[in-house]
Amino acid sequence: MKKMPGVFAVFVLTATMAVSQVTYDRLRAAASEPQNWLTYSGTYSGWRYSTLNQIATSNASHLSLQWAFQVGDIGQLESTPLVVDGVMYATGQNNRAFAIDARTGRAIWRYQRNLPDKLQICCGMVNRGMAILGNRLFMATLDAHLIALDTKTGNLLWDVTVADYHQAIALTLAPLAVKNEIIVGPAGGEYGVRGFIDAYDGETGRRNWRFNTVPEPSDAGHETWSGDGWKTGGAPAWLTGTYDPELNLLYWPTGNPAPSNYGGDRGGDNLYSDSVLALDADTGKLAWHFQFTPHDVHDYDATEVPVLLDATWKGKSRKLLLLANRNGFYYVLDRTTGEFLLAKAFGQVNWATGIAPDGRPILNTALPTKDGVQRVCPGALGLTNWYSPSYSPDSKLFYVATSNECDLFTSAAPKYRAGHDFLGSVYVPDPVQKPTGALKALDPLTGEVKWEFPYFTGPNGGALSTAGGVVFAGDSDGNFIALDARTGHDLWHRQLGAAIYSTAITFEVDGKQYVVIPAGSAIFSFAVDQP
Amino acid sequence: MKKMPGVFAVFVLTATMAVSQVTYDRLRAAASEPQNWLTYSGTYSGWRYSTLNQIATSNASHLSLQWAFQVGDIGQLESTPLVVDGVMYATGQNNRAFAIDARTGRAIWRYQRNLPDKLQICCGMVNRGMAILGNRLFMATLDAHLIALDTKTGNLLWDVTVADYHQAIALTLAPLAVKNEIIVGPAGGEYGVRGFIDAYDGETGRRNWRFNTVPEPSDAGHETWSGDGWKTGGAPAWLTGTYDPELNLLYWPTGNPAPSNYGGDRGGDNLYSDSVLALDADTGKLAWHFQFTPHDVHDYDATEVPVLLDATWKGKSRKLLLLANRNGFYYVLDRTTGEFLLAKAFGQVNWATGIAPDGRPILNTALPTKDGVQRVCPGALGLTNWYSPSYSPDSKLFYVATSNECDLFTSAAPKYRAGHDFLGSVYVPDPVQKPTGALKALDPLTGEVKWEFPYFTGPNGGALSTAGGVVFAGDSDGNFIALDARTGHDLWHRQLGAAIYSTAITFEVDGKQYVVIPAGSAIFSFAVDQP
Repeated sequence: MKKMPGVFAVFVLTATMAVSQVTYDRLRAAASEPQNWLTYSGTYSGWRYSTLNQIATSNASHLSLQWAFQVGDIGQLESTPLVVDGVMYATGQNNRAFAIDARTGRAIWRYQRNLPDKLQICCGMVNRGMAILGNRLFMATLDAHLIALDTKTGNLLWDVTVADYHQAIALTLAPLAVKNEIIVGPAGGEYGVRGFIDAYDGETGRRNWRFNTVPEPSDAGHETWSGDGWKTGGAPAWLTGTYDPELNLLYWPTGNPAPSNYGGDRGGDNLYSDSVLALDADTGKLAWHFQFTPHDVHDYDATEVPVLLDATWKGKSRKLLLLANRNGFYYVLDRTTGEFLLAKAFGQVNWATGIAPDGRPILNTALPTKDGVQRVCPGALGLTNWYSPSYSPDSKLFYVATSNECDLFTSAAPKYRAGHDFLGSVYVPDPVQKPTGALKALDPLTGEVKWEFPYFTGPNGGALSTAGGVVFAGDSDGNFIALDARTGHDLWHRQLGAAIYSTAITFEVDGKQYVVIPAGSAIFSFAVDQP
Repeated sequence: MKKMPGVFAVFVLTATMAVSQVTYDRLRAAASEPQNWLTYSGTYSGWRYSTLNQIATSNASHLSLQWAFQVGDIGQLESTPLVVDGVMYATGQNNRAFAIDARTGRAIWRYQRNLPDKLQICCGMVNRGMAILGNRLFMATLDAHLIALDTKTGNLLWDVTVADYHQAIALTLAPLAVKNEIIVGPAGGEYGVRGFIDAYDGETGRRNWRFNTVPEPSDAGHETWSGDGWKTGGAPAWLTGTYDPELNLLYWPTGNPAPSNYGGDRGGDNLYSDSVLALDADTGKLAWHFQFTPHDVHDYDATEVPVLLDATWKGKSRKLLLLANRNGFYYVLDRTTGEFLLAKAFGQVNWATGIAPDGRPILNTALPTKDGVQRVCPGALGLTNWYSPSYSPDSKLFYVATSNECDLFTSAAPKYRAGHDFLGSVYVPDPVQKPTGALKALDPLTGEVKWEFPYFTGPNGGALSTAGGVVFAGDSDGNFIALDARTGHDLWHRQLGAAIYSTAITFEVDGKQYVVIPAGSAIFSFAVDQP
């Protein structure tokens, strides 16, 4: 008998791997350490782009599974993992969190929050990831708390109440760490909550400021609500925004006014619903706002990632903000001033015939209506949605996953009861036109569609682009896909067994580039074995 | 804008793939169609060996994920999938069943049994797979029914009661299809059930015969039970047996006598517990039996796969039966007569000092005991267990996953209550010796260990060997592993994120060899992209 040496001995070293502190300076310069993935969108600019190029168009067809991590829970992973110096931090359903050896997929620690039995969550017990600052991880919870965990152990360091979950306020977003602050906002636009954006001290958990996304009677903007509509006004802030360190402005998108599909009791534009807000990161003071869909009645949350790009605009260097909106229009704004520069439909749109020079939609007064049922494009789930877009400085294209669906809407005044549905409508997909989807590549300065890769169904996952010239995307049929960033040609795909509700990240450990996608109940890690 | 052609169009053809009938002749000659996996152990002989050789020692390091199928349920997959002409049939927890396109991993249909709320199942709501015969699939259920599903649709064709689940009888095994019959046996040795082996008509579901594994007062063997011990005698039959078509004998292994760890109220050998039974497939009549562990008090179920091998034994060609037993001894029997030929410890054993020439263990009368606590090796989970071994005719080695664990036992008379635990002991792993495991390669004719590949922990998954010279195994740390069948050298491994409780299968579609392993909540399919 001879004994073979154990091949897996290296695994036991994992727990002792050194993890250095993630300072604000590192977060600000995240693009300079592509071996890591330090914040939700990769960098503060929201590009979800990596300069890693080991996985390239030439070898993406050789992508091979390196490891799978199973969460041990049913559900749809919407988490964007973070990676710091070889350790991955990810979240699952029900506010589970994990530290994972990023080379091997082995768990270092697991955490699960003890949640109340009855939570009213619109769209699944999901979580979109954590923020990291110093040696702390920050998770926003379904019972509307913000908690800090020790990066090394997963131990709870502090736990603060953000809002009262009995009001059907939940936190599902990945927080954003800026300077010494952790920024969060709530979900709950389906329940008539009133939205806000909060900043908490990363060390103590003390709240530094709150910006109310529905102005109080004494505040500017309150005049955009008739009667008592503001009291249940919605405008939640359930997606992670972006940040310009030079301007010290946060760009935070907001959701629909409530009730989402009936506007009769909330006359006016309903600020700051369906907007992007530019907030001073230190004070939370509003620098400017831009509302994409005034007085929305189609659930067109603006909770898409605002992408920050410095570019030449009509001969002049400008700081731009790009946002492919759920309402079907792609927007370019000046992010210093909020000036509207461009809007262009990037798919099938019929609720507005265009966007006026002042940035306001030109409503279609002749929407097709039959027996009180209106056919509206895009449908309530939007032409795109919260899933991340990507911008590549190599291809100079903006990648966005899109649905092609029109819905049949009926509308009626709903009655408000705290903690209950407050929608005001029923809608169903148009049965005549089968919903499909596509990943589209837009010219970021014109909104023109340069190529599209079709999906059989509407997507729930976003896009990652890399210096290898590859765009990674996932469809709702369970395919994880690598495309040529310039042409949209398919390079490779794998069926992962569950609709993809997240967006890939990439990182490097020990000289090997990995690309990672959560899907269903597992996180899958791929690399090219011999690049 | 240009549209890329959809790469996935081929998927929609799946549902119309022709699936031919799986006749008894095909099952009997299963070795001649290695592109399929037609029965639990691959063939009736229980080898879990495939003549496919596209995946070989030379290229196994290039194994690459082809697809993953997520079950959408929490748990440990113990299922061995079947593959018939490009379609895979697998089961999950809670009697879920699936038909899957074996090339792409896309679901063709899904089935789930509506189970009663309260089921008493010893070891998880598991299922180990289906049998196929004609155009029917057969699943044994946790509520002790046998059901037939339509291969094309997953529709229920018939449903018969095997036993009363209120008595804590459950069916977890993969049935065996032989001729026109479907053979099953129950789990429940922890609850004092009385075991049996049943044969049902595949067409109608009518029961053809039953063999009681605890003899009734009028039956031979009843004299091996003192008093009323037989009434709660255990001897369940919870693992799929094997079959010799020439002899027309089923070889079915049985589990522990109950209570599993206290023998005071069941004096005698307690037939037919911990035995292998040779039954006439047409009538269920006992041809012979061999009991490995008479009067067992350590939960040494003999529910390991009996492997059938024709070989030269001491100069004479003989039909052998090989069984690596949970009690720590590897046995060779003559499968025509049941004659005992050889037994050899294949790991750490202290409960017996050896096996006598008549096949009976020589009990160790000086077991280490302290304060009424006895240290017994192997522990209650056995040196091996139900997970499949494999025999390769190329390497002429027998592969078996093993635990290296001793347990501390305390024993006391339990009280029987129908449907409740009936164990008679407490046991814990010896805290001094950390349990480990290994995949061992035995000389099948001597039981000598030729090589072993160490595991950090005790295994729950078995072994598959192939003509490519590869042995596939899975450990409880979540690694799926390819080893050189001759040397035990590691060729490749992947971390799949959950302890592996099943054994790999292999098949071929469209000229490509796949190897598939269920792990946790997902089924993973690998191949070498450019062999």
